[in-house]
Amino acid sequence: MRKQTYPIFIGLLLTFFNSVSAADKPPAFSRADLAAAATLRERAAADATAYQLIESLTTEVGPRLAGSPGDKAAVAWAQREMTRLGFTNVHTVEAIVPHWDRGEAEFSVLAPYPQTMPTLALGGSVGTGSEGIDADAVMVKDLEALAALPAGAVKDKIVFFSNRMERTRDGTGYGKAVAVRVGGPSAASAAGALGVVIRSIGTSNLRFPHTGAIRYTTTSPRIPALAISNPDADALVRQFESGKPVRLRIRSSSRDLSPARSANVVGDIPGTDLANEIVILGAHLDSWDPGVGAIDDGAGVAIMMGVAKLIKELDAKPRRTIRVVLFANEEFGTSGSTAYLAANEANVSRHVLGFEADFGAGPVWRLSSRVNPVQLPVVDQIFRALAPLKLVRGDNAARGGADLEGLSKRGMPILEPGLDGTDYFDVHHTANDTLAQVDPKALNQSVAAFATAVWLGAQYSGTWDRVTEEKPPRR
Amino acid sequence: MRKQTYPIFIGLLLTFFNSVSAADKPPAFSRADLAAAATLRERAAADATAYQLIESLTTEVGPRLAGSPGDKAAVAWAQREMTRLGFTNVHTVEAIVPHWDRGEAEFSVLAPYPQTMPTLALGGSVGTGSEGIDADAVMVKDLEALAALPAGAVKDKIVFFSNRMERTRDGTGYGKAVAVRVGGPSAASAAGALGVVIRSIGTSNLRFPHTGAIRYTTTSPRIPALAISNPDADALVRQFESGKPVRLRIRSSSRDLSPARSANVVGDIPGTDLANEIVILGAHLDSWDPGVGAIDDGAGVAIMMGVAKLIKELDAKPRRTIRVVLFANEEFGTSGSTAYLAANEANVSRHVLGFEADFGAGPVWRLSSRVNPVQLPVVDQIFRALAPLKLVRGDNAARGGADLEGLSKRGMPILEPGLDGTDYFDVHHTANDTLAQVDPKALNQSVAAFATAVWLGAQYSGTWDRVTEEKPPRR
Repeated sequence: MRKQTYPIFIGLLLTFFNSVSAADKPPAFSRADLAAAATLRERAAADATAYQLIESLTTEVGPRLAGSPGDKAAVAWAQREMTRLGFTNVHTVEAIVPHWDRGEAEFSVLAPYPQTMPTLALGGSVGTGSEGIDADAVMVKDLEALAALPAGAVKDKIVFFSNRMERTRDGTGYGKAVAVRVGGPSAASAAGALGVVIRSIGTSNLRFPHTGAIRYTTTSPRIPALAISNPDADALVRQFESGKPVRLRIRSSSRDLSPARSANVVGDIPGTDLANEIVILGAHLDSWDPGVGAIDDGAGVAIMMGVAKLIKELDAKPRRTIRVVLFANEEFGTSGSTAYLAANEANVSRHVLGFEADFGAGPVWRLSSRVNPVQLPVVDQIFRALAPLKLVRGDNAARGGADLEGLSKRGMPILEPGLDGTDYFDVHHTANDTLAQVDPKALNQSVAAFATAVWLGAQYSGTWDRVTEEKPPRR
Repeated sequence: MRKQTYPIFIGLLLTFFNSVSAADKPPAFSRADLAAAATLRERAAADATAYQLIESLTTEVGPRLAGSPGDKAAVAWAQREMTRLGFTNVHTVEAIVPHWDRGEAEFSVLAPYPQTMPTLALGGSVGTGSEGIDADAVMVKDLEALAALPAGAVKDKIVFFSNRMERTRDGTGYGKAVAVRVGGPSAASAAGALGVVIRSIGTSNLRFPHTGAIRYTTTSPRIPALAISNPDADALVRQFESGKPVRLRIRSSSRDLSPARSANVVGDIPGTDLANEIVILGAHLDSWDPGVGAIDDGAGVAIMMGVAKLIKELDAKPRRTIRVVLFANEEFGTSGSTAYLAANEANVSRHVLGFEADFGAGPVWRLSSRVNPVQLPVVDQIFRALAPLKLVRGDNAARGGADLEGLSKRGMPILEPGLDGTDYFDVHHTANDTLAQVDPKALNQSVAAFATAVWLGAQYSGTWDRVTEEKPPRR
């Protein structure tokens, strides 16, 4: 027993000094701030704003591919809705966006067993010309398998990438699989191929192909690239497994049009004593064209607008300014985000904390961050305020979304209420991205989680220090 | 107490006479027959034949619309597979089938909120001409609502039927809703409409339109008819509910081609002492073209072929001949069934019992019948032999499937292991009708149920009396 006296004494002493130290600093959040957070959480559960925004956006605008008429309609819609909800300083920040036209696409197996299968051109793909391309085909699993083939193995052929994406909660399965879509066309072209067909980067067994952007290199010819659904990819694998030569036909009238003007749409809930500091809430307004962009990223747009609307309706005003930015053109290279950053070059340091919602319609299951380690205890306190939503405490290695990457690289801290992506890639980038895929309860739980974290982020009594390290400590 | 003596005595007496009466007749099934039924049930659970047949049919043939190249390929496939499985008397019975070409279809909302939505022409629809039809639209729930409109209300307009089909286990929801698809085009035409768009007769919220046959009357002009998916129908309803005029555009290049030759494919497992009597197992070989016909009716084809194969592999031979008939053209008016009946006019009475599988890939949940009431106790015995599969005992008002309707109307008894249709209309008649929608376990359970009932039907020691009443008693 006696042996333990000193450690216990030291422990008590440390507790005492910690208390003194805590008493020296003001608490991170006042009782009133925490009470308001609880109010936000409760109101979010009963507020229909977010769902109604997705309904309105998908019904009245629908698909809004960068540069398309729908894109322009979405910009007008967002300004109208921000104004209606009472946002301040509603304005646009112009962005030049690529304008790609999908046209029509056709995919057929000519041999051994002729069949035509639904297909989608990958985003940015060149077309085939009206005559299409008929060629023998080679099946490879992924980029590594392509690289391992002997020279000339795919020359004048169509390459079929067969690898199937893994279902995960946090999107890591997508991260691993998507290289085939982004880099597959140029890799196959460099090896002499005429075209590429990929198994969709998606998780469902429904017969929906998934589109998504490709990135051509400048060192090999641009070749056409299409996606087929998982069940069709399985059927095509069986055709290859018959041992008979497989011959494919692809045809696509995809083409690039002239770059177009679009815009980020910005609206504020003004702060009070720290109004000069901005807590930025990002989502993207553009969508792929086969669906109506309900979950990607109508949901993110609606969550962020719903959060700002609920905070605006509080009796208390936020200390920092809460800014919703609906970015143009996330899907085709984030030129909206780049334009926002360029227009705000002088204000980068005023963006003291960022949130992004671009991973579906919820629920939120985790709280991660990328903050200066000094503020990790503040994140812990925000996590505790989220306790009724039963989240998991994530690490400090949050990647943030694509649209806040520029600000994040310039040192802006990120808080990341993690949207559950288990089923997200069933729908993402397909024609099936419709309102029917949104669960209003999960959506409202997400609004509650974001609202709590955004509000407390705006009220924090200290300073949100910049993130100075490339990779801050994970905890 | 004394009061009950007589009733108890009479009860015992009746039991005694029943026993005597039962002892007078041979039992309906021998112990060996019942043991073989158990063997079939066990083997079915572990047999991959049915699943492999769907895999082969959907991979090597795929869509097989009546009259199309796929239809011809399916006939060849069926003959090859029946022969491979050791069926006897494999032959075809020619049928003339309609040959309709789907072409391309387009559906757009022009006002108030322009959007293009995925669509499918309904089976047999005329096209619009290449210029398409732009017209104001009227929304009605169903045929009754259309009939209730004032005269001239839909003149020169496009009619949108908005009613949603109800999900049920036994298909009754389909029965109620399908009248809009079958009769809607001519009803709208009779009222002066230029075209029809229907909410798909289907139960899912996936963005798949459902096709299916329409029936034009001869008394009003044939007008084009398209279907849109449930989520798009919901979105279109919201456009109507905006209160603004709705203007639609439809375009379709659907057209009728010349009727084509197709064939029913027939194969037997020959009987022994009652070989002249036929137990007929029907399914249909044709499919709609947007999907690959895995559940409609690849599953029925596979169940029936799998059942016959398992019975063939028993040590015992069936008493009656078991005949699998894969009918041509169920979807476009059952001309295959009509041709089979015509070719077998002299043999109608030899078809002593019928089974049909055209309601998906299982599981089987119920045993119904349409037998002469004299044989209801035999059906009860078959039901008891199915006990390990935990079915529900249905009534004696089974409708049978479309392909056996002719034989049924001529008095052939029907046994109906009821396939569970709860999810069937999520997939039925859509592009999503692929192998991925087949659950191998449910499929094998269905093979087990059918095999048990078919085998016992073929072994029954008595005579399968003809069904003489239009509507036999329900129990």
